[in-house]
Amino acid sequence: MTTRSHFHQELQDLRDKMMAMGGTAERALDLSIRAYLQRDILLCKMVHKGESIINESERKIDELVLDLLAMQQPMAVDLRLLMAISKCIGDLERIGDQAVNIAQRVEDLITQPPVELPIDLPQMASLARIMLRRALDAFATGDASEAEAVLRLDDELDAMNRDAFAAVESAVRDNPQWARTALDMLIISRNLERIGDHATNIAEDVIFWIRGADVRHHATL
Amino acid sequence: MTTRSHFHQELQDLRDKMMAMGGTAERALDLSIRAYLQRDILLCKMVHKGESIINESERKIDELVLDLLAMQQPMAVDLRLLMAISKCIGDLERIGDQAVNIAQRVEDLITQPPVELPIDLPQMASLARIMLRRALDAFATGDASEAEAVLRLDDELDAMNRDAFAAVESAVRDNPQWARTALDMLIISRNLERIGDHATNIAEDVIFWIRGADVRHHATL
Repeated sequence: MTTRSHFHQELQDLRDKMMAMGGTAERALDLSIRAYLQRDILLCKMVHKGESIINESERKIDELVLDLLAMQQPMAVDLRLLMAISKCIGDLERIGDQAVNIAQRVEDLITQPPVELPIDLPQMASLARIMLRRALDAFATGDASEAEAVLRLDDELDAMNRDAFAAVESAVRDNPQWARTALDMLIISRNLERIGDHATNIAEDVIFWIRGADVRHHATL
Repeated sequence: MTTRSHFHQELQDLRDKMMAMGGTAERALDLSIRAYLQRDILLCKMVHKGESIINESERKIDELVLDLLAMQQPMAVDLRLLMAISKCIGDLERIGDQAVNIAQRVEDLITQPPVELPIDLPQMASLARIMLRRALDAFATGDASEAEAVLRLDDELDAMNRDAFAAVESAVRDNPQWARTALDMLIISRNLERIGDHATNIAEDVIFWIRGADVRHHATL
């Protein structure tokens, strides 16, 4: 194998490792939402346990990125790929943090009597989940137009988060005894909105890697 | 000037640019808190205006990092510095986003009658501000022990954020008519806590740059 193709094998290994880390982040989000739906403290504990795996992945992948940068001195698209990976794993790690935050709020929710509030957190979670999956797919296939679709979905999630704020406000006005539950749900809503932001960041990094143009902060869509 | 010292001049210019971006992020935070204290819509507007400057800085600095990586192929400590800068500017940009979020909540607060709630947001802001300043100082001087001090302060800010949650809950229970104001304050509290997280990330990147060891996710302090 030539040095060049060896380098590309290493790059592919690195992408595989990032995808595996992405899968771990997805499972953390899924677990945290199942914990919410089933009011299950054991699922919360599983989210906490998973955090160290995600953190360890970030550290290892970041070291590999640094090694490849130092030893292979890549140019152009390969260099952009390495920079994109370095940024994406930071976002994946923070998605893991948000899942932990959700699990913490669920642990608090379980101590309160269950009440029905007009805030559809599972729907928000489903959208955040789709955004993350599509951002990771875009990364796996190097598909910038798939990544652009993620950017558009983020507006929907932001709107749902704003609706949740209004719903929580009116819920606590009408039923102040439900304040704690409503506040927990508000925080979870914001955690999900933030997961959408991280998926958006990943999508932007894919576009930057593929097209070489920095789409961040451009309102082109 | 030799190529080597020319490169180090470019690195220093890049650090200066990052420090200037840090100053812009600090001003955004200051403005957003002054807007809160003075209930001043004009200050909110100034925060919104400043956002594009921060975003533009991130884009420009990231391009310079990429250019230096491609052209100079730096090793060891210089390579780690470039990676640290690339990560830090992402955190500074998000601090700018949080300042905008605070300004948005203040815009909403102003529409409500002023009420006194036992949530000391200015004190939280002051701590977040100190953390950001010390993280930037650590970056400017390459002082890893100064960076470690920032990591310790983050626990304090997290505790204040938890206290704010409890205070908001009891406030809306006792005075449901204040729900909206209390919720706005809860969100601001979380925005400030998040700014502390970003300052912590910057501090960790300084330690990684200087010591070459990844302190992220290690509970060594």
